[in-house]
Amino acid sequence: MNSITQQNIQVGEIANGLPLTIPVYRIKGDGSGPKVYVQANMHGAEVQGNAVIYQLLEQLKPLSLCADITLVPYANPIGCNQKSGEFTLGRFDPITGTNWNRMYTDHSVLAQRFAEQYPDLAIAEIEQQFRQLLIEHTQAHLDASLDRLTTGKRIALNLQRLAHEADIVLDLHTGPISAKHLYCPEYAKESASYFNIPHVLLIPSDFDGAMDEASFCPWWALQQAYATQGREIPVLTEAFTVELGSQEKIDLDEAWHDATSILSYLNYKGAFKDASFAPQEMTRYACLLENYRAFYAPMGGMVEYTAKPGEHVKAGQPIAKILRMERYLSETPLNEITLDEDAIAILHFASASVNQGTELYKFFTKVETL
Amino acid sequence: MNSITQQNIQVGEIANGLPLTIPVYRIKGDGSGPKVYVQANMHGAEVQGNAVIYQLLEQLKPLSLCADITLVPYANPIGCNQKSGEFTLGRFDPITGTNWNRMYTDHSVLAQRFAEQYPDLAIAEIEQQFRQLLIEHTQAHLDASLDRLTTGKRIALNLQRLAHEADIVLDLHTGPISAKHLYCPEYAKESASYFNIPHVLLIPSDFDGAMDEASFCPWWALQQAYATQGREIPVLTEAFTVELGSQEKIDLDEAWHDATSILSYLNYKGAFKDASFAPQEMTRYACLLENYRAFYAPMGGMVEYTAKPGEHVKAGQPIAKILRMERYLSETPLNEITLDEDAIAILHFASASVNQGTELYKFFTKVETL
Amino acid sequence: MNSITQQNIQVGEIANGLPLTIPVYRIKGDGSGPKVYVQANMHGAEVQGNAVIYQLLEQLKPLSLCADITLVPYANPIGCNQKSGEFTLGRFDPITGTNWNRMYTDHSVLAQRFAEQYPDLAIAEIEQQFRQLLIEHTQAHLDASLDRLTTGKRIALNLQRLAHEADIVLDLHTGPISAKHLYCPEYAKESASYFNIPHVLLIPSDFDGAMDEASFCPWWALQQAYATQGREIPVLTEAFTVELGSQEKIDLDEAWHDATSILSYLNYKGAFKDASFAPQEMTRYACLLENYRAFYAPMGGMVEYTAKPGEHVKAGQPIAKILRMERYLSETPLNEITLDEDAIAILHFASASVNQGTELYKFFTKVETL
Amino acid sequence: MNSITQQNIQVGEIANGLPLTIPVYRIKGDGSGPKVYVQANMHGAEVQGNAVIYQLLEQLKPLSLCADITLVPYANPIGCNQKSGEFTLGRFDPITGTNWNRMYTDHSVLAQRFAEQYPDLAIAEIEQQFRQLLIEHTQAHLDASLDRLTTGKRIALNLQRLAHEADIVLDLHTGPISAKHLYCPEYAKESASYFNIPHVLLIPSDFDGAMDEASFCPWWALQQAYATQGREIPVLTEAFTVELGSQEKIDLDEAWHDATSILSYLNYKGAFKDASFAPQEMTRYACLLENYRAFYAPMGGMVEYTAKPGEHVKAGQPIAKILRMERYLSETPLNEITLDEDAIAILHFASASVNQGTELYKFFTKVETL
Repeated sequence: MNSITQQNIQVGEIANGLPLTIPVYRIKGDGSGPKVYVQANMHGAEVQGNAVIYQLLEQLKPLSLCADITLVPYANPIGCNQKSGEFTLGRFDPITGTNWNRMYTDHSVLAQRFAEQYPDLAIAEIEQQFRQLLIEHTQAHLDASLDRLTTGKRIALNLQRLAHEADIVLDLHTGPISAKHLYCPEYAKESASYFNIPHVLLIPSDFDGAMDEASFCPWWALQQAYATQGREIPVLTEAFTVELGSQEKIDLDEAWHDATSILSYLNYKGAFKDASFAPQEMTRYACLLENYRAFYAPMGGMVEYTAKPGEHVKAGQPIAKILRMERYLSETPLNEITLDEDAIAILHFASASVNQGTELYKFFTKVETL
Repeated sequence: MNSITQQNIQVGEIANGLPLTIPVYRIKGDGSGPKVYVQANMHGAEVQGNAVIYQLLEQLKPLSLCADITLVPYANPIGCNQKSGEFTLGRFDPITGTNWNRMYTDHSVLAQRFAEQYPDLAIAEIEQQFRQLLIEHTQAHLDASLDRLTTGKRIALNLQRLAHEADIVLDLHTGPISAKHLYCPEYAKESASYFNIPHVLLIPSDFDGAMDEASFCPWWALQQAYATQGREIPVLTEAFTVELGSQEKIDLDEAWHDATSILSYLNYKGAFKDASFAPQEMTRYACLLENYRAFYAPMGGMVEYTAKPGEHVKAGQPIAKILRMERYLSETPLNEITLDEDAIAILHFASASVNQGTELYKFFTKVETL
Repeated sequence: MNSITQQNIQVGEIANGLPLTIPVYRIKGDGSGPKVYVQANMHGAEVQGNAVIYQLLEQLKPLSLCADITLVPYANPIGCNQKSGEFTLGRFDPITGTNWNRMYTDHSVLAQRFAEQYPDLAIAEIEQQFRQLLIEHTQAHLDASLDRLTTGKRIALNLQRLAHEADIVLDLHTGPISAKHLYCPEYAKESASYFNIPHVLLIPSDFDGAMDEASFCPWWALQQAYATQGREIPVLTEAFTVELGSQEKIDLDEAWHDATSILSYLNYKGAFKDASFAPQEMTRYACLLENYRAFYAPMGGMVEYTAKPGEHVKAGQPIAKILRMERYLSETPLNEITLDEDAIAILHFASASVNQGTELYKFFTKVETL
Repeated sequence: MNSITQQNIQVGEIANGLPLTIPVYRIKGDGSGPKVYVQANMHGAEVQGNAVIYQLLEQLKPLSLCADITLVPYANPIGCNQKSGEFTLGRFDPITGTNWNRMYTDHSVLAQRFAEQYPDLAIAEIEQQFRQLLIEHTQAHLDASLDRLTTGKRIALNLQRLAHEADIVLDLHTGPISAKHLYCPEYAKESASYFNIPHVLLIPSDFDGAMDEASFCPWWALQQAYATQGREIPVLTEAFTVELGSQEKIDLDEAWHDATSILSYLNYKGAFKDASFAPQEMTRYACLLENYRAFYAPMGGMVEYTAKPGEHVKAGQPIAKILRMERYLSETPLNEITLDEDAIAILHFASASVNQGTELYKFFTKVETL
């Protein structure tokens, strides 16, 4: 059995002076495989990733490990415990409104200079030294004067410091009411087929504050920088946001399957010796980020969501009914909502009550199979 | 087709000076049947009652009506629109924390004196005059100096004034994640079998601030007052809280069935001529309020709810698993939770994240069949 | 210097499994004085009590102590850390809406039987044994099955167990925007003059869920029980809610003065040897709880509070202006609000935005001097 | 007396189907002056701007007007009515966390093409036609398919459409606990001296989503575009964010002064005939946005803010004390916080309870006088 170690890292302090800590679990391989980082629950209501980490730990124990694997459940001790009514209000800092998953720091700017400085460095050296550079720069932000860092930045930088040690980064999230889907950088498209996830969102390599981007953007920038010098190197890190389904829900069986899906990908990446994890056969649908369409409520009302997550809808087919009882006599009380193009419903809003302009659905459009 | 009229009543004003209004729909019968009052959505997230009112209106239109029926969707225009994150935070006044369904006023105190004053009044006269007294007292509260009324009291009194006009009052609610169940005053037990609701909670005639109690308690007190004078009269009003299932959800088909269930009860009470609505055959389980058991989370953690709403669980059988990843190595990360007696799971918490002491489940215990 | 000890008691667990703890500070006297319990910050935004405890500790260190004193800052680790926007949303449980200071348990019911069982017990024995009984009953609630206790009850019972050890209990609170005032049980009226607090609210000995009531009601019931047996005993415990001023504010100088005020009272009660703390001369105004008048906003709007906390207002004198810009042309945009009786403004709402029915002010009316 | 007209524009719909409307007041001048747009209360808690609009209307009525003036109080009917506890939680959309003042749309991209298309157009024509273009493009966004617009975008676009009609735009805000200050685009520095505001923040012409930027950035871009063609035109629109002081507060006298300050600026811009409004003499301190320093809490705790808004602090001088009672015995309970450079404290956090990393203060540093 592999041994697991636990370290609790302090990422902040709350108003009554108590420390905010995050548990970090580590399993060591024989050094021949990749370094893997998995975190969960950065958004407070997105708890299922903790169950996936539980099932990963259970399955990793007996394996013959090549990879070093770091697993961080409860990545955000504020978001995780922020209740407002029965639900968890942990998508953004309750004080500032800032999305917890938009507070990571982009180090892509380091790439250009590194490539210029070390034009001929061997790949293994590039990987090791640039990784070190990313860790040092992250640490430097953390070591800056305490009054320079927001609460969220401090949490994010602590996690990012751990993530930069890895060449495979998985950030486990969920949608509101959602089908499983994967945020996959376009350059890592091939890897998407090793997850048991039927919906793949192909994202460009632009930084928008999220963990996956913070992890891979500098490496992509590095590859670009060498390319402009005429040298082809691979993008040496892969990072994904794995959307496990719906928020506010723990399902341990489903978590087992999702752990298996991750193990299948890690097996493909050489994390294990003699392991048989392999991807399931399934049609995998891909959509470019620019075609990932948000559909906002055209009117305020009470919504019955008739298109279920994962459902393929045809142009003109109803996706929802909006009930408006305020003017039952003078207006149509029941309104059928349709979409004007073929699409796959990926997720919908978690509540039946919507204002005009609330995000009702997100759809894959212009879908291709992977 | 019966004609429906709409009146918008103002129940308050918000900070930017806009009025808070509630739509009131009325259908008139031939005067030979009862007066019926149905309201929905007093708690903001409990929206399904609006859909039931929609389906009631659709089904009432062609009926031959004896009863006058008043229907009030969106009973609480503050709660209905109070968002915090994606969910609706409408169970209590966001300023004071007071449960919106605990702000009604008890007029039971009027009963004793009325019975003393009119010992020999005919039943029909009792009904008419005591009803008038309840309406007048409610109106008097509303007509008091404006600085004497809280926001919630003003909304509640406006609704209560409408409800007191009726001898049948239905307050449509939902639980968090919930099976259908009915709050039924013990004296009206017989009526419970006319709803298509398998779980019946028998409540005593004590006032605790809710609409159903505000509606029937004075009439029960009146019956008691006459009884102490040696005269037997019936309790002249019935009121129920109808729990339609889960919150934050609109399901129009289910709403149709629930409307039919209500029509079955109203048919039994003489609301229609030549209507065929009849209760479904089903086993109806009854539980006394004192045996309605709240089960609080014995530890903080992430919960998989394994006992589903409506499920009959045996003593010692697991009802939930609580995952705790904070001390994966030093404690049992996965904890099976059991109940120490046989029970029916009626509802559970809406979120997977719980503190120690969060209400996890509510159970019918010491169940009998009706 | 007196030695201070610290104990951290666990009062719950949050969703990520971390314990909720409360720091308990104790200073021992020579045993000849009373036992004193002081807590602060049960409501999250009412932080000034923590500063008063700080200043108490600083001043207590060099004193010659007769009393044993227990001091508990941050009494509510959930409320204290519950942010919603910039402000602290800690007046009620964010999940249930229940006021944190309405969750204590009344043990008054034990009094009658105790008096019957020990009709002739010496006062010192009564005090010791009844105190023991209260502690045991509180502990029994805590030792009950874990699934029987709500989050708030568990916190409250832990505090109450500590408070029952004392014969002087001070619960430090603040109002929203508020003058200093004291909740004082009518029987302890004499003690009120030893605090440097100009406004005294005289409360009857009914239990409504608060810490002060939970502390003194059983002792008052005991005195009553002996009285019905024809024996006069004193009420052996005094408890006060000390309202220190406005919430969301720390003022260390003011805290020093408030600490001195408490030390003056404790000196009067024999807590110190050779201490010179004495009450300031001031007019102290008293008001019966039934005359403590809440004034609700007669309309929605934006409020300028012209009557300041502590101000004596005359009937008909303006207390506020309400601005309504929604119908500037068709209605009076600026509305002067008056009170119809003489009063002292004790506190007002913390925000300028009010709905119709928001509690605008609380007033002492029918004021007498103490 | 000038006549004032009111129009209510609908900017959305809430969940119970009620429309969200905003009152728009207009006063017409003789056409010889500028077009002025003033709005207030985009952030829910920042109510004082409504009082300033009230005092502006009162003072504008008898004036001899050259300018057409549009005034919009309660610009955000959702934020204005969003309570969470006693305070107004209206800084961001409660569903998404997005800051309401970051949802405006940048039309700067239109400038380049316009300048190319009309290289020699007369200034008056440029102004009229480019203004028309901005209005049309804003309207086009509003006329797009309803499912393309978020709730906040729809509100913002409605306001922006009104603002684009003006060549002077004032967006009235407040800070949390704050001194008066003015966000002023660097190119309009000269105008800053006509407001009675001692602190001026000079901002570059980059778009970051706010109303002032949305209003002036396209005009600045237009000026730049003509400059690259070798033609010098002025920036034809000025827009300011006027920070009136502290949130959650109405002060009608102060509002009168602030109205006078605005009238002084408008008088300078030719809005009135024969009006005597003139700026007060005062030292005006200027700070570049890049030197506007946020100071985050270096530890969690309870804060006494000792540097008051408007106070000039010296490097090393204490600005706050942070009290930490959790480890009174083992750590320093009272921590003095200092700043490492000379500065003017402009605003501080509204609550005494802070997490590590909460924004404690904002400071003008590297201050110059205007």
